[in-house]
Amino acid sequence: MATETRKRKADHIRISSNQNVQARKATTGLEDIHFIHKALPEIDKQKINLSTTIFSHKFVAPLIVGAITGGTSEATKINAIIAETVEELGLGMGVGSQRAAIEDKKLEKTFSITRKKAPTAFLIANIGGVQLVHGYGLKEAKKAIEMIEADALAIHLNPLQEAVQREGQKNFEGVLEKIGAIVKELDVPVIAKETGAGIAAEEAKKLEAAGVKGIDVSGAGGTSFAAVEYYRVKRKANSFQRRLGDVFWDWGIPTAISIVEVSQTVTVPIIASGGIRSGVEMAKALALGASLTSLSQPVLHAANKSVEETKNVLSLLIEELKTSMFLVGADSVQALQATPVVLTGKTAKWLKMRKFDVEGYARRKRS
Amino acid sequence: MATETRKRKADHIRISSNQNVQARKATTGLEDIHFIHKALPEIDKQKINLSTTIFSHKFVAPLIVGAITGGTSEATKINAIIAETVEELGLGMGVGSQRAAIEDKKLEKTFSITRKKAPTAFLIANIGGVQLVHGYGLKEAKKAIEMIEADALAIHLNPLQEAVQREGQKNFEGVLEKIGAIVKELDVPVIAKETGAGIAAEEAKKLEAAGVKGIDVSGAGGTSFAAVEYYRVKRKANSFQRRLGDVFWDWGIPTAISIVEVSQTVTVPIIASGGIRSGVEMAKALALGASLTSLSQPVLHAANKSVEETKNVLSLLIEELKTSMFLVGADSVQALQATPVVLTGKTAKWLKMRKFDVEGYARRKRS
Amino acid sequence: MATETRKRKADHIRISSNQNVQARKATTGLEDIHFIHKALPEIDKQKINLSTTIFSHKFVAPLIVGAITGGTSEATKINAIIAETVEELGLGMGVGSQRAAIEDKKLEKTFSITRKKAPTAFLIANIGGVQLVHGYGLKEAKKAIEMIEADALAIHLNPLQEAVQREGQKNFEGVLEKIGAIVKELDVPVIAKETGAGIAAEEAKKLEAAGVKGIDVSGAGGTSFAAVEYYRVKRKANSFQRRLGDVFWDWGIPTAISIVEVSQTVTVPIIASGGIRSGVEMAKALALGASLTSLSQPVLHAANKSVEETKNVLSLLIEELKTSMFLVGADSVQALQATPVVLTGKTAKWLKMRKFDVEGYARRKRS
Amino acid sequence: MATETRKRKADHIRISSNQNVQARKATTGLEDIHFIHKALPEIDKQKINLSTTIFSHKFVAPLIVGAITGGTSEATKINAIIAETVEELGLGMGVGSQRAAIEDKKLEKTFSITRKKAPTAFLIANIGGVQLVHGYGLKEAKKAIEMIEADALAIHLNPLQEAVQREGQKNFEGVLEKIGAIVKELDVPVIAKETGAGIAAEEAKKLEAAGVKGIDVSGAGGTSFAAVEYYRVKRKANSFQRRLGDVFWDWGIPTAISIVEVSQTVTVPIIASGGIRSGVEMAKALALGASLTSLSQPVLHAANKSVEETKNVLSLLIEELKTSMFLVGADSVQALQATPVVLTGKTAKWLKMRKFDVEGYARRKRS
Repeated sequence: MATETRKRKADHIRISSNQNVQARKATTGLEDIHFIHKALPEIDKQKINLSTTIFSHKFVAPLIVGAITGGTSEATKINAIIAETVEELGLGMGVGSQRAAIEDKKLEKTFSITRKKAPTAFLIANIGGVQLVHGYGLKEAKKAIEMIEADALAIHLNPLQEAVQREGQKNFEGVLEKIGAIVKELDVPVIAKETGAGIAAEEAKKLEAAGVKGIDVSGAGGTSFAAVEYYRVKRKANSFQRRLGDVFWDWGIPTAISIVEVSQTVTVPIIASGGIRSGVEMAKALALGASLTSLSQPVLHAANKSVEETKNVLSLLIEELKTSMFLVGADSVQALQATPVVLTGKTAKWLKMRKFDVEGYARRKRS
Repeated sequence: MATETRKRKADHIRISSNQNVQARKATTGLEDIHFIHKALPEIDKQKINLSTTIFSHKFVAPLIVGAITGGTSEATKINAIIAETVEELGLGMGVGSQRAAIEDKKLEKTFSITRKKAPTAFLIANIGGVQLVHGYGLKEAKKAIEMIEADALAIHLNPLQEAVQREGQKNFEGVLEKIGAIVKELDVPVIAKETGAGIAAEEAKKLEAAGVKGIDVSGAGGTSFAAVEYYRVKRKANSFQRRLGDVFWDWGIPTAISIVEVSQTVTVPIIASGGIRSGVEMAKALALGASLTSLSQPVLHAANKSVEETKNVLSLLIEELKTSMFLVGADSVQALQATPVVLTGKTAKWLKMRKFDVEGYARRKRS
Repeated sequence: MATETRKRKADHIRISSNQNVQARKATTGLEDIHFIHKALPEIDKQKINLSTTIFSHKFVAPLIVGAITGGTSEATKINAIIAETVEELGLGMGVGSQRAAIEDKKLEKTFSITRKKAPTAFLIANIGGVQLVHGYGLKEAKKAIEMIEADALAIHLNPLQEAVQREGQKNFEGVLEKIGAIVKELDVPVIAKETGAGIAAEEAKKLEAAGVKGIDVSGAGGTSFAAVEYYRVKRKANSFQRRLGDVFWDWGIPTAISIVEVSQTVTVPIIASGGIRSGVEMAKALALGASLTSLSQPVLHAANKSVEETKNVLSLLIEELKTSMFLVGADSVQALQATPVVLTGKTAKWLKMRKFDVEGYARRKRS
Repeated sequence: MATETRKRKADHIRISSNQNVQARKATTGLEDIHFIHKALPEIDKQKINLSTTIFSHKFVAPLIVGAITGGTSEATKINAIIAETVEELGLGMGVGSQRAAIEDKKLEKTFSITRKKAPTAFLIANIGGVQLVHGYGLKEAKKAIEMIEADALAIHLNPLQEAVQREGQKNFEGVLEKIGAIVKELDVPVIAKETGAGIAAEEAKKLEAAGVKGIDVSGAGGTSFAAVEYYRVKRKANSFQRRLGDVFWDWGIPTAISIVEVSQTVTVPIIASGGIRSGVEMAKALALGASLTSLSQPVLHAANKSVEETKNVLSLLIEELKTSMFLVGADSVQALQATPVVLTGKTAKWLKMRKFDVEGYARRKRS
């Protein structure tokens, strides 16, 4: 099992690097969010404070490098580079799927390298939500956490990915209850995390009630796992599976919509992810109600090379976020979250149809 | 007459196979319907029950292969292949226009082959609505039914097709009354079926009052019969008729709109058809209020070849439907029909203008 | 003066035939008007009555060939062909600008040919509105009418055209009053006619109050007179005038919007013109509230050739109109005007902003 | 410092002339503003009075040539040409950034040439708002004014430009207070002017309260200073800075939106600028509530050549404005400002979200 899982994960990283697996028709919806430029920011850009304390951890900036890889020697290198970079920058990091390493102790070091390289950064372990109804439980969750001395555990909710994979586990009965059971027994906060199809208000409410301490929306509009499967399968000429990847390529709730659905429904912190590609988009996600942002694709290339290149990419994203904040006169993440933004297009229409407050964003702080 | 009709039908199938006769500017409107992905489906995909009982018949899945062909030896082969396939999969099938065979007994076997190959599947006979005011009546209806021992009779309402055909019958006076008269005398349920231009609320209401037991909307956005005529005429260089085909190419009520107009107006079961090309679109049609879906174009190529290929196509569509249901946590067709969907774009605007409830779809089941 | 006017008019006809002088960004808005197809038309297409009595004249179909040309020998031929055709079909015809012939008796025959060829058809004479404040008056109006024994007089309101022509008359002070004065003294009904930029509610109201008996909206979206000037000037390399033609190319109120603005404001009959290119568009214009439709561009080519070709073009347009009526179950122009249509897009938004009733169109006759 | 500033300004003018530094995705929003054509203008175009008195100065037409250049010998020539032209036409002119000349007396003549060439035209001096918190004060403001015997002082608010420039000053703390202090001490009116990213209602209110006598919105949709920086940096291969220019290329409040936000919030005169490229757009800006319009890009090429060419460009723009006014029957700027306009698209949606009155524009003067 571990070998197969490992091979699949290696496929994933190779395909994501070499093929265009970004959404085709779906967009994040962030293009429908408009900041209201402030000609008089009345702040000093240098004094902008990007730090934020979430999950009782102080982040130098509200940025996490999302789960990318693990389980191979190549992964070890990538994980080490990312870990060293986020340690240096005071950010957070989620590791790739730890499933293979939970089942094969030899692979643990491909993950544990992150804590070695990042003794103080916020590290997020993970476990598949669907695994909880296929034999996994508290023991495996703790193993995942201990493997990297994690500050939090992300439970990956990935029904789309499982659905389009031939070998995917397609029974999600009782996942919520299992999550509820685990949450209570762990010492670290549990984050419910989608993997590219977004989280709706209904699910957010149930997850909060089950005790999760954070929600990572991972909406549609960025990397599509159905697309990854499309390419993985393509080479095997299995047209049945390939067509599934094609038909579901753009499935999911766009990131901007998911952030609003969740933030107007629950009070736990929200991590915005799914197609975020610039600091301006990070700023928009935070203005919509997210507490942290997370991204993987923009660092994929750099993390294969060096700490320096990875640091350049992340620093630039942070500089873009800071510049956005400067231009709306927000000197803190909190101030950014209170700054007015205008929602238009399909994003505004979807949210109104679902009875969420859209006007409030545009009118807040108008006096 | 029969020969001419047969020749025309043979033209149709040839053109549909070789020319692009899909809508140009019109779309089904299904692209304006958005599912709300469920990160926690809380169901087992394997346990999803696609079966549905409509017209007192149990369908293994809510899928019918729509009326394609008949009357020629090539048609016999195609009909046999489709029949064998739907029998094996527990689906339904509508045969092509039976008019030629009603008038020429020798052609009957090109249709009756379907019941031989599909002893238990749901078979739908047909008669042209407009024929009812041009000499046809109960006798012909019964003949059509008996020819294939049909489970239902579809009365084709095809004013657009008749209008753009030079030889078309363009007197529809009294069709409704004739339908009402026949409905009462038949032992099988009668389905009113458009042929690509959709059914509006007003007509649905009248049809239900006349006693029809089901409505097949067959909306715009898929194969255009005006386009078929355009190509049929083109070869004869009759520019007058050709321009008619061109001007009316995209005429009609888009499928998604027609489903909503009809489902919010009558209580008889709705068959969704017109441009449905994937299981996701089947799922959307059901979520909007349809009880069954019907399609022809996606099996056209396979049904010319073999049962195996046709089965592959239909199985994949069903798998896509099932995957859609899994991803919104619907373990039955009924559950799918209650799942929230968001309507945007022209589809939402049309329906609001016409005073149908659009918000209800987006908000149902939110608690 | 007459020579110059004649030359300019000859330029116009040549440019309109050889250059693309259709609107570039502007559209008629008719693409935002959607018929609701009737699967059960319940009428006999052959019995559809297209005849309509407007200005106490019975038109076999609600179609007028708009003002095209006059003043040259080429124009005589074109006018004769159109006149003979509309006589045969029982339609109406407006002649081209009669100004040159009013000023030079020798040119009269280029216009009077129409009445010779069309003894009973509805013929519309014309006079420039702006000429009324530049020396023209009752005498010239009567001369124009008598020249073709006209059934009506169109007063052309063409401020855009005058504005972009170097030699244009740009003083419109008192035009309305002059129109009011003339209206009273004439035996034939006066129609106020724009020439491609549309008529707004405000102007319609004033015109009706001044006594005009019909309004020809001639909206934007079809042939652009600014574009004609652009090409006329281009050859003379006068960049100043050329740029004016370019900047105002798409100026004006789109045809669909103008029909609604006027029809919801006044009670006199409306002639819909401006970019109407098919019988479906004629039907849409009538459904929005017009009593007659008028077009020039579609017959331009044929009217240069023969009565037969012109008849073909007009007959096809009428057939398309009839087919549209058949497909919405309207057996008369009056019935068509009461049939529901759905307005979407920019057209619906403009009209709502201006507080016109948009929903009414979509909901009428729903029971 | 002066040398560096001068070099940067020279870079700006060179890049603006040779590279496409116009907005890519952003538009001015003026394409969403629609005039309601008047078929009966009832005015004499020749009598249209374009003159307007703003800041106690009579402008022959509501047009200012915006701040372009200064500080180099090439700039002297350009400034002289523009000045001579606006003097002749009775317009206004803003000079380019005077910072270099404030710091280096030798450069003064590159600006003072304007007053020599334009003894009576409205000349606008300028000072950077952010400089006021970096050492500048009343003395420098007076120096700028005296240098050209200015009629007004524009305080440039350019946080976007500073933010994307490596050497930019990014501390805007206290700028508003400093503006307030200066305003009181100066004899000429102070205009707060953005430089391409627009001014929001919130800032307009604060600026008015601080005592500024006019607001130049300079919205997004025209020349992008982020784009200028993108090209300036490109040649130095500093990818970090280049990416900033790229990401912020389209940042800002579109011009049409900014005019409405400001005009519905304050009572001081508004100068509309940012992407205005024709007299029709000038007319739209005035109809939305601006008192003057300002533009630079359209004269860039001509101002490098001769007074005659510059005069041609400006005269044509004025002729287009006058033609627009003629076509809506407005014989004065005041009348134009009361004429109805329809707002659609993203512009209308943004403004509604922000609770500004949009319908009022479409319905005013309807009786």
